[in-house]
Amino acid sequence: MTTQELIAQIKKKQSFLCIGLDVDMTKIPKHLLSCDDPIFEFNKQIIDATHHLAVAYKPNTAFYEAYGIKGWKSLEKTINYLNENHPDIFTIADAKRGDIGNTSTMYAKAFFEDLNFDSVTVAPYMGKDSVEPFLAFEDKTTILLALTSNIGGLDFQGLKTEKQEIYKHVLETATTWKNSKNLMFVVGATKAAYFEGIRKIVPNHFLLVPGVGAQGGNLQDVCKYGITKDCGLLINSSRGIIYAGNGEDFAQIAATKSKELQLEMATILAAL
Amino acid sequence: MTTQELIAQIKKKQSFLCIGLDVDMTKIPKHLLSCDDPIFEFNKQIIDATHHLAVAYKPNTAFYEAYGIKGWKSLEKTINYLNENHPDIFTIADAKRGDIGNTSTMYAKAFFEDLNFDSVTVAPYMGKDSVEPFLAFEDKTTILLALTSNIGGLDFQGLKTEKQEIYKHVLETATTWKNSKNLMFVVGATKAAYFEGIRKIVPNHFLLVPGVGAQGGNLQDVCKYGITKDCGLLINSSRGIIYAGNGEDFAQIAATKSKELQLEMATILAAL
Repeated sequence: MTTQELIAQIKKKQSFLCIGLDVDMTKIPKHLLSCDDPIFEFNKQIIDATHHLAVAYKPNTAFYEAYGIKGWKSLEKTINYLNENHPDIFTIADAKRGDIGNTSTMYAKAFFEDLNFDSVTVAPYMGKDSVEPFLAFEDKTTILLALTSNIGGLDFQGLKTEKQEIYKHVLETATTWKNSKNLMFVVGATKAAYFEGIRKIVPNHFLLVPGVGAQGGNLQDVCKYGITKDCGLLINSSRGIIYAGNGEDFAQIAATKSKELQLEMATILAAL
Repeated sequence: MTTQELIAQIKKKQSFLCIGLDVDMTKIPKHLLSCDDPIFEFNKQIIDATHHLAVAYKPNTAFYEAYGIKGWKSLEKTINYLNENHPDIFTIADAKRGDIGNTSTMYAKAFFEDLNFDSVTVAPYMGKDSVEPFLAFEDKTTILLALTSNIGGLDFQGLKTEKQEIYKHVLETATTWKNSKNLMFVVGATKAAYFEGIRKIVPNHFLLVPGVGAQGGNLQDVCKYGITKDCGLLINSSRGIIYAGNGEDFAQIAATKSKELQLEMATILAAL
């Protein structure tokens, strides 16, 4: 899925909501535990109930890997279900990978070819030749960590050279890499005050914004400085949506929570 | 496996060799392709032929993920084979993970509990709360990327604040984290000139050193400034050993290459 197609979906659905599918077996409704594949069943019901309100889904691979081969099967079934039933959804493998060239190529193959995700999140610490193998997939998107939403995010990202903070170097340098038009950047909603400076460096790239909801970030604050004429934002919510309910009606409650966010987004989009 | 047990193995085997199991189906001997599980069969034969010459094995997870569920099964069989037959070997999941707290906990569970590796490599970009969930496993080792061996390694790691380069901040800061005695650090052999400065910050921690062989790093140069009285180094070679031959005798050729390195290591250890 290209960025242009994503922008079209945002306009059509009046939403820039991304739903994080971070499925923890200890947190899903008890009645699902007797299913053959509780993780996939949970995801399927969340997707069925919310796909008209969201433009993207983002499974975090950690939650699947923690269950070994069984977990990878659930991940594979989830992405296949999305690709088969909702080709208009932008899919993100939140994997935060990054390694030396030949190894990054293997990761890129894993997520872009074997699993057929539209995009994958990548950590920039190892520099240019660790990211370019992902960018070499011309019809796929690479989402680079810039300024993350967690407390420790500033430990190293916030260190300052004579010129600027490290995360700004990441943004600035990454835009010089080959095929950098296919980049998005992760910028945490908990760092809303930083969006103005970030937009000076990357005025047009999409930003994937986690941290609204459970982590305390605020949608209005993020949009104030982060939004572009094409929207340019994907706001992710994981726990705030998928674990809003934990009874048999969990998917309906997830839809209600999604609808609240979507309506807020529609108002923001209308004002562009 | 504790660091003390690793040190004992290094002394016993007169080796600080780590063999990287980065198995690419396009590079393994053709006669293995008819096996049920060519990747595991390749690893098993390499391990059988070299386990007396190496103290550690390091499968890079990218090479397994690229083959999907089949690949994860090969990885699981490989680590189980090592744990069952060679409990005296230090095992490293070269996964370069790192995410916000609750997610890092899931990764830690995946590699420390589900797969039962002794250690995992972790990227520091997201800071303290992305690494401490790994360190919370008190009998496991967390190997943090500091200065990597690839060309792009200096893109961000080499940026300099008023005080020092980012990778030095990573080393210095990480040693203040809870349970930091369980840390090792990745420092590339291609950066031998930097070892002197690195040892000033982390005089005793083990360093996992990739980049000898295919990437051009030199063992003598690394040891000159990197070695400690307890050795303090694990030198990794992947392609230089496992793809040295590609006929039916590939495992024997891997053993010959391992033996060459081990003899060089024994001489260095004797001089400590």
